[in-house]
Amino acid sequence: MTGTRVAVAGTFGPLHDGHRNLLRTALKYGDEGLIVGLTSDAFAQASRTREVPPFERRRDELAAALADLDEWGRTVEIRQLTDEHGIVSDEPGVDALVVSPETAPELAAINDGRREQGFEPIEGIVAPYVLAEDGERISSTRIVRGEIDEHGRVRD
Amino acid sequence: MTGTRVAVAGTFGPLHDGHRNLLRTALKYGDEGLIVGLTSDAFAQASRTREVPPFERRRDELAAALADLDEWGRTVEIRQLTDEHGIVSDEPGVDALVVSPETAPELAAINDGRREQGFEPIEGIVAPYVLAEDGERISSTRIVRGEIDEHGRVRD
Repeated sequence: MTGTRVAVAGTFGPLHDGHRNLLRTALKYGDEGLIVGLTSDAFAQASRTREVPPFERRRDELAAALADLDEWGRTVEIRQLTDEHGIVSDEPGVDALVVSPETAPELAAINDGRREQGFEPIEGIVAPYVLAEDGERISSTRIVRGEIDEHGRVRD
Repeated sequence: MTGTRVAVAGTFGPLHDGHRNLLRTALKYGDEGLIVGLTSDAFAQASRTREVPPFERRRDELAAALADLDEWGRTVEIRQLTDEHGIVSDEPGVDALVVSPETAPELAAINDGRREQGFEPIEGIVAPYVLAEDGERISSTRIVRGEIDEHGRVRD
């Protein structure tokens, strides 16, 4: 028991093994529960040219993946996220944010923002990348492009 | 219980509240034990112009700080470190490395090295900086320079 309440956030669509590793890491460390931020359609689409599956579909697949990966019986709450740093900037009761290596450098700015609001800074938990069969990392963009499937297998 | 064996490494001299926060984070998450890497005098001195306290003194102060901070009764092993990435590159049985924000970017290279040796990649746990009274972060270099004390109080 470490007494840790974690947050994790993303667009999670199409859901792939990199997301599953991030979610599994959040479940493992979140022995006091986890908050999963899921981007709204407007927020998810604003930073992308590729099409993103609709919120309800992403939410259902996310909930199914969390249920499937949860070996520990964690308390999980999925929240719609409409802007960057949504949960971590307005939730004093979060201890750690689970991130991918590419998001890790944002932790310093997140903690500066928390200190300004009088919140305790949080720990970052960096889940390693999951590599596809070709040695490059798995990403939703690569799946949408048709290069690999959700498990990182190269498509013919 | 998350089943996590953690590693943390440093020179830890002079020991300060930033180190204590790093060690406390390692103790909190290391419910399956922790390995604390402590740099040898030669390795510590190689990258510094300032004088570093001798190994035995650093080891004794480190052990005392760990005993003082351990609320959980963790199993702790202190190991002498003679090169960079010492523990994490030759220890398959470590799940996570506790790092400061400045060391977090090294996690990707550490995991590339682990994959090459056939080891599982590890998670990174990033402990936030501890700020001194003047809003800058606490560091051993600033203490040796006489700017602040080990708790970040500004010296007159």
